[in-house]
This record gives sequence, C-alpha cells and structure tokens, in this order.
Amino acid sequence: MSIAEGPATNGSKTVRHHDREYQVIGTRPVRHDGADKVTGRAKYGADVRLSGMLHGYVLRSPVAHAKIIAIDTSRAEALPGVRAIVTGADLPEVGDRVAELGEGAVNLRHLSANILAKDKVLYQGHPIAAVAADNIHIAEEAARLIEVQYEELPVVIDVIGAMKPDAAVLNDDVRTVEFGEVVSDEPTNVAEKFLYEQGDPDAAFSSADVVVEREFRTATVHQGYIEPHTSTALWHGDGRCTIWTSTQGAFTVRQQVAELLEIPLTWIKVVPQEIGGGFGGKISVYEQPVAVLLSQKSGRPVKVTMSRTDVFQSTGPTPGSYIRVKIGANRDGKIVAGEAYLAYEAGAYPGSPINPGCMCILACYDIPNARVEGYDVCVNKPRTNAYRAPGSTNAAFAIEAVIDEVADQLNVDKLTFRIDNAAREGTRRPDGVVFPRVGLVECLNVIRESEHYNSPLEGPNRGRGIASGFWFNAGLKSSVTVNVNTDGKVTLVEGSTDIGGTRTSLAMQLAETLGITAEDVQPIVADTDSVGYTDVTGGSRVTLATGMAVYEAGIKIRELMCARAAKIWECDTTDVRYEDDGTISGPGNQSISFKDLAGKIIATGESITASASISAPASSNAFGVHCVDLEVDPDTGKVRILRYTAAQDAGTAIHPAYVEGQMQGGAVQGIGWALNEEYIYNQDGLLTNANFLDYRMPTCFDIPSIETIIVEVPNPDHPYGVRGVGEVPICPPPAALNSALHDAIGVRMQELPMSPPRVLHEILKK
Amino acid sequence: MSIAEGPATNGSKTVRHHDREYQVIGTRPVRHDGADKVTGRAKYGADVRLSGMLHGYVLRSPVAHAKIIAIDTSRAEALPGVRAIVTGADLPEVGDRVAELGEGAVNLRHLSANILAKDKVLYQGHPIAAVAADNIHIAEEAARLIEVQYEELPVVIDVIGAMKPDAAVLNDDVRTVEFGEVVSDEPTNVAEKFLYEQGDPDAAFSSADVVVEREFRTATVHQGYIEPHTSTALWHGDGRCTIWTSTQGAFTVRQQVAELLEIPLTWIKVVPQEIGGGFGGKISVYEQPVAVLLSQKSGRPVKVTMSRTDVFQSTGPTPGSYIRVKIGANRDGKIVAGEAYLAYEAGAYPGSPINPGCMCILACYDIPNARVEGYDVCVNKPRTNAYRAPGSTNAAFAIEAVIDEVADQLNVDKLTFRIDNAAREGTRRPDGVVFPRVGLVECLNVIRESEHYNSPLEGPNRGRGIASGFWFNAGLKSSVTVNVNTDGKVTLVEGSTDIGGTRTSLAMQLAETLGITAEDVQPIVADTDSVGYTDVTGGSRVTLATGMAVYEAGIKIRELMCARAAKIWECDTTDVRYEDDGTISGPGNQSISFKDLAGKIIATGESITASASISAPASSNAFGVHCVDLEVDPDTGKVRILRYTAAQDAGTAIHPAYVEGQMQGGAVQGIGWALNEEYIYNQDGLLTNANFLDYRMPTCFDIPSIETIIVEVPNPDHPYGVRGVGEVPICPPPAALNSALHDAIGVRMQELPMSPPRVLHEILKK
Repeated sequence: MSIAEGPATNGSKTVRHHDREYQVIGTRPVRHDGADKVTGRAKYGADVRLSGMLHGYVLRSPVAHAKIIAIDTSRAEALPGVRAIVTGADLPEVGDRVAELGEGAVNLRHLSANILAKDKVLYQGHPIAAVAADNIHIAEEAARLIEVQYEELPVVIDVIGAMKPDAAVLNDDVRTVEFGEVVSDEPTNVAEKFLYEQGDPDAAFSSADVVVEREFRTATVHQGYIEPHTSTALWHGDGRCTIWTSTQGAFTVRQQVAELLEIPLTWIKVVPQEIGGGFGGKISVYEQPVAVLLSQKSGRPVKVTMSRTDVFQSTGPTPGSYIRVKIGANRDGKIVAGEAYLAYEAGAYPGSPINPGCMCILACYDIPNARVEGYDVCVNKPRTNAYRAPGSTNAAFAIEAVIDEVADQLNVDKLTFRIDNAAREGTRRPDGVVFPRVGLVECLNVIRESEHYNSPLEGPNRGRGIASGFWFNAGLKSSVTVNVNTDGKVTLVEGSTDIGGTRTSLAMQLAETLGITAEDVQPIVADTDSVGYTDVTGGSRVTLATGMAVYEAGIKIRELMCARAAKIWECDTTDVRYEDDGTISGPGNQSISFKDLAGKIIATGESITASASISAPASSNAFGVHCVDLEVDPDTGKVRILRYTAAQDAGTAIHPAYVEGQMQGGAVQGIGWALNEEYIYNQDGLLTNANFLDYRMPTCFDIPSIETIIVEVPNPDHPYGVRGVGEVPICPPPAALNSALHDAIGVRMQELPMSPPRVLHEILKK
Repeated sequence: MSIAEGPATNGSKTVRHHDREYQVIGTRPVRHDGADKVTGRAKYGADVRLSGMLHGYVLRSPVAHAKIIAIDTSRAEALPGVRAIVTGADLPEVGDRVAELGEGAVNLRHLSANILAKDKVLYQGHPIAAVAADNIHIAEEAARLIEVQYEELPVVIDVIGAMKPDAAVLNDDVRTVEFGEVVSDEPTNVAEKFLYEQGDPDAAFSSADVVVEREFRTATVHQGYIEPHTSTALWHGDGRCTIWTSTQGAFTVRQQVAELLEIPLTWIKVVPQEIGGGFGGKISVYEQPVAVLLSQKSGRPVKVTMSRTDVFQSTGPTPGSYIRVKIGANRDGKIVAGEAYLAYEAGAYPGSPINPGCMCILACYDIPNARVEGYDVCVNKPRTNAYRAPGSTNAAFAIEAVIDEVADQLNVDKLTFRIDNAAREGTRRPDGVVFPRVGLVECLNVIRESEHYNSPLEGPNRGRGIASGFWFNAGLKSSVTVNVNTDGKVTLVEGSTDIGGTRTSLAMQLAETLGITAEDVQPIVADTDSVGYTDVTGGSRVTLATGMAVYEAGIKIRELMCARAAKIWECDTTDVRYEDDGTISGPGNQSISFKDLAGKIIATGESITASASISAPASSNAFGVHCVDLEVDPDTGKVRILRYTAAQDAGTAIHPAYVEGQMQGGAVQGIGWALNEEYIYNQDGLLTNANFLDYRMPTCFDIPSIETIIVEVPNPDHPYGVRGVGEVPICPPPAALNSALHDAIGVRMQELPMSPPRVLHEILKK
C-alpha cells in the first residue's frame, strides 16, 4: 500500500493509506450552491412569504417548573388583527406511544407536551400558547394579553440532585428503564439506565499497577447556529398541508408532524429551505406543528419564527453532565481496566445522548476489562437534542484527562501511551461492537510525525496538549433519482438536506461513477413529495450513506446507457462496456462519449432515469486526534490558542476542502465549548445568558487558523471508502485544551467550560 | 363483447364495447388539486413574487410589416428606476439551425426573431425591446421613450394573396420545401408544400355519379385562455437560471430557452406553475427568454406579464385558411374519390398545422382514391401555434359540408351516408396510415340511437345537423417516479403539467395498478430538475402516454412490494403474488394488504421507489360525432343553439367527469369558432378587436348544457385502453352547426365564423 500525499492548502495535507486513483474524488470543484449562497439568492426559511400570510408568536413560560392552573385567551382573542390562538389543548391526545421518528425512538406524549405545554411547564421558555395575527406586533401584543395561572414547583437543575430520591419529579409518567425493561415503580427523574461490561474490571483494577479515578462536570451548551428556527405552514383546507422549514430532515419533520397532529403522512409536504446551521439542533420539530395548527385554525398561511432568546431557552442544547472515570494500567504501559459512570441531563423530557456517551467514552482504547454505567436524567432545562457527536465530547473531556494522568504516572509519553493502547481492527468496545478497519493509530502517527508536534514550544505559561476522539457514522435510509439530460449533464435529486456541502460531495461521487465532471452534475435537494424516503442529515451520514445510493443510481445509469448504445449499434448489451472515463465502447472498436450518447437519448427512445433507495446496514467509525499549543494569562486565567492541528481519518476525502472545513468547524465549536460556552442558571432555574452577548461563542479573534491533516484509511463498507467526517472533530478540543493547560500551568481541569474565572481559580488555588 | 352502460350524470352516458371491470377507473373521485383551485391557493404564474423582483414591459411593433432602421434606447435607459433594456441584438445569433424543440421541428432563427425582432417586424405586436424597472409603470414609461425608426413595407394578410408571385415576401430566407426537399430558389411566403395521394383520384372522379366541389375560408381564431402569459426568471449569476412560468411543457420551455440563449440545458430549471388555460397556445416560448435576458442584465429576478391585447396580438392563434374540397360518390352511396387543397396561414414565420390538416381532412372516410395538397403560407399576422386539434377543425368544416351535400344529392340520409363510408379498422388514409381498431362507427351509431337524434324538431328556422371529427393522440416521452410512504399512500411525481385534470387521471391509473384508492395517491407536478424528461401536455397525450409510464412504474412497485413481502416472510419472491385488490399473498395462506406492508417498509429495509420513462411508440386515434339543433333569427342572422350532444370514443374513460368536461369544453370552443370568433384586420394589417369585448367568445348565455355520450372502444396499445380525449371535440362543432343551419334555412355556409352579419347576408341573398 502506498502512502501518497494529496494537494495541500493552508498548510493542510492529506495522507493516503490506499492506492486508488480517482478522477473527480479528491478534487476541489466550486460548490454548486456557491453562487446562490454568496449572492444572497439562496432561500432560507425566513425568505418564505406567501399571500395572506399571518405571523405567529409563541407565548413561553416565565418560570422553570410549575403546574398550569388555567389559561385565559379571551382578552387576546378580542384584539383586532388576531386570527387564531392555540394552546396545548389543540394538540391531539397522542397517548403514551413511542414512535420511531427519524431521530430515534421518541415518546410522542413528551414530544407533544414540548410543542405546547399540557398541564405543566418544565423549563423557562416552555411554549404555552401561540397567536397568529396580521403582523408580528399584534401577535406579540396579543400573547401578552393571555393570562396564565401557574402553581410553581421546586426547581431541579443539577443532574446529581435530580437523581436523589427526594428530588422533585418532573414527569409523573417516567419510570427508570434499563435496556427496555422498567426497573422502578415510582415516578422518577432517572428515565433510563445503561450498563455495558466486558472482562472482569474489578479484578483487573485490583491487580493494576496504577489506577486513576477522577470526576468531571460539563455545562449545558448550545449548537449556536446563526439562523433561528422558522417555519411557514399552509393548511390547504382538504386535509393536506405544506410546511416550508429549515431542517436537517424534511422527512423527519413530515413524520413528526403527522404523528403529533394525526395527519396522513402523505398529505404533508415538507419543503426544506436552505439551512443556516443545524449541528443536530434542527432535527426535532418545535414551531412546525404550531404553524400548522395556527394555519388550520385561521385558514391562512402562518409563519412562526423564533428569536435568539427563544432558541436558547426553548430548543435543544446538548446536556450538561457528571462523569466519573477510572483507569487502571500496568507498568508495561498497557491499560488493563476501565470504568465510567455518566449522568447526562436530558432536560425536561427523557432523551439525552447518554447511550452514545457510554459507547464512546472508552472507544479510543483497547480495554479488555471495562464497565460503563450511564443515566438519562430529567432536569428543569429545555429538552436536549443532538449536537455534533452528541454525548461524545463530554465523554472525551473526562477520559482523555484520566489517560493523560495515567501516562504521567507511568512516566510514558502521552502520545506513545495512546498509540500503544489505541483501538484498532478487532478491538472490542464494552458495548460489544468489534471494530473493523479503523484509522485511529494512523491519526496518532500523523500527529507524532507532524511539523507542529515536532516544533519547539517555549515560553512561560505555554503548553501543548493532545487528545483523541471517536464518533460513529450512521447508516440509515437514503433515496436519490438521477436524470440524464441531452446536454450530457445529469440532475441528481436527493432527499438529504445540505448542511455541509453534501450537494457537491454527492455530485462528485455520481460524477466519479459516471466518468463525467462534478460540474456536469446538477444536485437538487427535493421536497418530501418528490424523492424517496431519506433519513436526517446527521450522524455524519450523508456523504457516506446517501453516497451509497448515488453510487447505486450511477451504476443503474451506466447500465441504461449501455443498453441505449446497444440499441443504437444494434448489438447485444453484453457487448457494450462502460469505461470509467465515461466512454461507452461496443463491438468493432465503436465508442461514444457519455455526452454524445446523452445527446441521442430523446431521439432514440425513452428518457434515461434511475432511482435508488438504500438502507445502509452497518455504521462506520471516525477517529480524530487534535494537537494544540496554548498560553495562559496567569493574571486573568484567559487562554490564548497559539497553534492548532487536527488529524482525522476521513476514509476517502471526496472534497478535501469540505473535509477540512468540517474539521475546522468542529474544532472551533469544541474550543468554544471548552473555554467559554455554558448555560448559566440562577437558583430559580432561569437562564441568565440567553443571548449571543452573554453566551460567549468564539469569534475569529479567538481562534488561529486550524491546520488539518486528512488521513485516508478507506471504509471497507463504502464503494469509495468514505467515512463520515462532520462530527468527530468536535470531540477532542476540550480534552486537548485541558491537556495543554496542564502542560502550561500544571493544573488538570475537571469542569467545562475552562473559562477565565475557573482557570484563574485553579491557578490561585495552586 | 357486452355493451354495458356506465353511470350517467347530467343526461350523459357511457356505452362500453368491452368487458373489463375496474375498481378505480371509471369512478369520479374529487380531484387532488380541487381544494387549492377553488380556494385560490393554487399558484399560477402571476403569483410568483421574489425578493428584489423587477417588472418587465415589452415594447411591440405598432405596424404590421416594416424594416427596423434604428432603435435608440438612450432616453429610456436614463429614466430613474430602469434596470435593464434588451433588444433583438441581445439574443445570440443562433443561425439557421432547425431544432427539435418539443413542439416539433422549429427553425431557431425564426423562433429567436419572434422573441425580439432582429431586422424586421412582421406583425403588429411583434416584440422590439423590453425594459426591466422597479415597477411596471416605470417600465412602461421607459418603453415609450425607446425610439424606433421603421421603414414600412406592403402588408400581406390574405393567404391566397400571399401565395401570388408578386406578393411582398416576409422572410427572405424562406424557400418552399416539399417533404424535406427545397423546391424553389426564390424567397417566398410559401414555406412548405404537402401532397398525399392514393389510388387514382382523377379516374375515380371522372367515373363518379356525383361530384361536389366547394371552397371554404376560415378566420384566424385564438385559444382565448383566461390567464395571459407570465413568467419570472432569476439569473443566479453562475450561469444557472430558474424560470417560473405557466406552460404546457416545462421541458419544452427549458429546451427552447437553452437553444435560444445558448445556456446548458441542465442549468435551466423550469418550475411550472398552475396554468389558467393553454389549449396548445402555451407550448412555445414568448416572454420566458426575455425575462431571462433582463435578469442576466439587471442581476435581479424579473417578471414579464402580457396584457390581454399582447396575448391577442403577439401569441400564437390558430391559422385562418383557404380550403377546397371535392368528393365523388356513386349512386350506391359509396364515396369513390376525394380531393382537398388546403392553404393555411402560418403567420409571420413558417409552421402552421397544415400537415395535420392534410392528414385529418379525409380521415373520417374510407376513400380509396384521394389526393390532398397543402400549403404553409407566411402572412403578416402573429406566428400561429397549436390550438386544440390544430388544423383539423378548419378541415372538418370544409369536408363535412361537402359530405352533407353529396349525401343530399344522392338522397341518402347524412348519418347513414357517414356510417356507410366511415373509416374503420383497416381503412387507409391518403397519408398512408392504416387505422387499427377505432370507434368512429360506434360514435355514429350512438348518435343515431340517441334520444336527441330521435326526438322531433319542429318550428320555423330550426334545423338539426351532425358532423364527425378526427384527431390523433400523440405518444412521445413521459417520466414519472412513484414513492411508497409508510401510511400506505404513494406520491406520484410526474413531468406532465396538468391542464385538464391529469393529476387525477394519472393517479387513478396508478391506484388501479396498485389496488389502492385514488385518494391514496398524491400526484405532484415536478420541476424540470426533479423528474425525468417529459414532453408537452398536448396532443391529447397525457392520460394516454404518461398513463403508460404510470402503469410501468406501478408494475415495478408491485414487484418491489412482493420482494419486500418475501423478505419479511423469508420466502422466495416467486412465491409471492400481488393481487389486483392490493393484497400481497405468500406461501401458507399468508397475506398482507398494501397499506400494512407499506407500514413496514422503513423498518425492514430501504424505501420503495420506482421511476419509469416511456417513449410511446404509436399514436392512437380519436373520433367524435356531434349532433346539434339550432334556430336562426331570420331578422338578425343570429343562431341560437337549442340542444347539443357530443359522442366520442374515449377508449376507456378513466375519470368520466373529466372526459365529459373535455367534450363539453371542446364543443364550446368549437361553437365560438363557428359562430363568432375571428381576428378582424384593417387594410394596414392592424388587428381591430384585440380584446375580449370585441373578440366575441361564447358565454354561458350562448351555450346550452352539452350532453355527452362516452363510447368506449379500448385502445389496443394502452394497458387500460385509454385514448386521448382533449382535442377531437373541437373539430365537429363548426361543421355540425353548418349542417344544422342548412337544415334550418337551406343555406350552406362556406366561411367561418358564421356570424350574424354573414348568416343574414346569406338569408338576404337567398
């Protein structure tokens, strides 16, 4: 196997562990939606304007935990210009059904109660009622006229406090479930428990030469997408409705609205608009069913748009967590035992990413004896939702700090220790999964060999850290349709909404399959009526799994083009070959280019079109290793990042610039999570920083250029070896920064964010 | 073969010549787009509004024939609010290429010059320049500031005059072509000549017992669709553009704009809006390329909308014509010879429906010795375009009057004479086509047996007439995609724009194929990016030909559903059967409904989706026979219709109410053409009645309820026996009314329209 280096930009490079030569894959064409995006022509949710459209405003709970005694909408209804008012009473009683709603199993009653509260409010910002009026000002004024009587209840904000037997219970229908079995009779905040075990961890710990156990806390953080949620719904009057929305999953919105409002699935058309950032937070529905209800009631199209404060208070951040990790190792530098205890805040209703947290926390290491225990815990915060590798960043922060400390105690280099204990092909995770070919060792090695890692770092209060991260790639369902046009170009109709350049990464795979250029493919993100069922854009799955559907459709097109050539040449189809450069060859040295043959389609028969739907069976695996240099201001505790390098196994980088962009974007979000971002609650459970001034996200002044090293260890389950790349780069940053902090000032942080006050506190304590 | 009668509504009935039993076909479900259409929610071209949209105004020629000496746009450009001005100079030089543009072969240079005049204007209303401005008022004001210098030329309006050697020639690049061969060296107005012959007509005429020869003239008439043409274009800045337009053929618009503006086909997306009537007139492009040019030049989206006067002056009416018909018959009541000479006005550029006129004129009769000669002639009128059975109504008016007269001279009943000489399976037309199974005799018979035909008609100045009509059904290309949803409903994505209820007639065929209900199919008319190539909605082809694509996709879905059932039942696919009622049966008496199996799709594998593209090879044939009673006011010449019955072979009526609607709508348009409609020109070639007040279309006060008799003689080339039904009902009315006029007052008219002044003139002459 050769290791060839690909084209480098911005000091970034690609290291290949394969021999495959591609014509389109690995190049960097201009993205198909580029012009529209940079000229403002791309249509986002907010750009939807319909004739007669009303504006909706959602009244939200001012308190964090209360019973709703009464809602009086009469004064609001009397306000001129008000066209409809809805409350939780307008939502069908969907019962206690657990539905597969495209973002995993969801309890419908909880989802419904999160859309518009029924009897209780469980967090500040919980929707109570919604008004549709001629303009947003009337709607807002009317909402203020709605009188709600609350009976306030004790507030539960801390995950450990919420697990105590005497804690106020948020949902009286919640019982603890362990792998599908109800294991408690009493209402509780502990919705689910996970336990994964392999080998004999107790025995292994007792015989280990070194054992380190530490506990960690991480704060609730938000995805921080630029575009607030916005949806417009039109009830057509005959039972059908159309929803225009910015979403990661048009089919998921369709499914959720159908289930929540008891509308036949097929009678809902979801038209996905461009999306101004999602990162997992735009999968679940929030305002979509409300807009539909208001349109049903008013007979008019209704647009409902959140404010930034609404987004912080009422959408799904990623959970704050408590994690305890214990690692045992021997003097020979091998880890022998691992144990982790994770308690994740679900927010108002069950459903934190505790299970992936449990599966990820030890996944970078080959640990024969291990136990992982996890808890999903309700607290009076908004219902959490997915955020880029959900559950894994919290876990990486905890495990990587302990790994560093064990290496230190063993007096082994941190990077060597990681390589020696790295998960690789055949490694079994505590949850039972055995890794196929993965690229963690290759990532660790490229960091070890990197110019960055080998450059000197001098000066006081400076340090260098490294950390690994792991995340799955989802498989799931995708559908595409490919139409060949007579100009030799093809349209690619896809059900995957494009949040990270997947129009182009899919178009490139089709171009590679057909032997044409990326520019010759016109990718189209279709509405839910116009393409087969496709799961969410999430789980790093689109380039990977929808790519498999694209490949399958491309192969069908090759066959149809061969059949057409055979018809023209009056020969048998088996005598026609489709070459990888798009030349179609037949008997007697006849040949024709894809473009020329395409030009003959209409003249010689029916149009050439192929649909493909796939159900990607296995999930693949992504690993990344980050290296960071930083400097701490000893007077303020402020961290300045000096240099940052991210290495990641992309399998095959279809469009290296987008892979680099994902690595850089993930790293930046991880840095924000690490150093500044947090939901700050007061003792009443009220969020005190629900805006971008007080919720401090990193800006370009905080972040150096992120250097990237793409490692290509092809995924054996994908025709082009693709792995999902979008999520894993958010996992290592908090851990890597903690590692570097320790290198700089000798302090190992145990709480996120490692904000200036906390760092200063540790410096002063020391 | 049984002859069963179907359900009757409004005194209408169905007469079946087949035994097939259907579950969905033949029922009358509510149309899928009904609610949107009646509540005003359906989106037409005029409903498109984009951010920053400019409004376009087209400056048109005030004269009918002139050289353009100079165009000065400088004063217009200086007007504040003007963003772009284009003239013919902005159109690429497309050369003399003849392109297949979805409406048959079109000379691109002529098409281009019709969009924006180059060196000459050839009719009043010929577009000269277009302005895009902040609002329509500024655009209109700016257009008035454009100075155009004309050198006027002699005007040629009459088709026979235009054929004379000394006539002014409109296009100096036109030479007479006969079946692809250029047969003249000189520029001429006679663009094309057709000659079809069989047997020995001269000998047959000389031996015939009775020979009648008459000549006829028909006026130019317009389709009169309610919705004027309107298009909005957005140039994306990267070479791509989007066009929202009301059109009968989204792919045709794409193709024509691509050819005219030299844009890659695939980079143009045409989004078809709902259409407020087309009847053939919304196939060719007019304002679409202008809107694209203005958007290119201004960088903004531009909407161009015609006024009613623009529509009359500048779009494509159906030609005025001169026709001479000669029929010879023997005393035994058999026609032995036929001859026809047809000269059709092409308008400004070649392309009248003279060829179909030639093929239709003798098509209702079995005439062993025949000659048909046709001429396509340019005159200073707008370029003609398709109008419902283009060319056939003119021809039917001529032939049917002569047939009546021959029958009278032979002293044979007109209906009996038609039955005795009717075209049937095996009849050879002069153009060489031999009819397969057709239903003309059956239509004549149901009229003969009808209550209407057998009821007495008494009173002065009253008469009863009958006439037959013929029209082809086009085949061409269609594509559809079918997606099965988990609620047991399916989406049907189609490329055929819906102008006559074809969403429902296609949905019903899919429902029949799958054994589900029409309501369980959600039909979607997609844009050109989202479905495979599909030819125009025209030629009565959609229910017929797109129906074949629907059937093929349905069969694929049946196979995929069987395969999925086999997977679930763990048996061989060959052991699974798909029953016509939608039940899927397997080994051991296992069975599952379509709906239940659909519910398991996502849980058991990939989505179930199928695309089908067809190229319908053979065209099928439609015949209709109309019977009308009328009364003439001898003082004014005004005709009042007393009773009207239309019989038509629909093959299989998918949705009888729509077939009846087509029969009624076609008859009403034919009545308007017969009695009132005409383009009235003055001696300068200026149209004097370009508005709905002066161009007299029939209203509900003019028309009785049209009774219908659907005859079902299944089309052997279609899986459900469908024939196209949309066009043939316009053919018989002028002829039938003329037949009745003769019965009432003894006058046989030879000119259309048979308006009160003309009828009165004939009465007075007599």
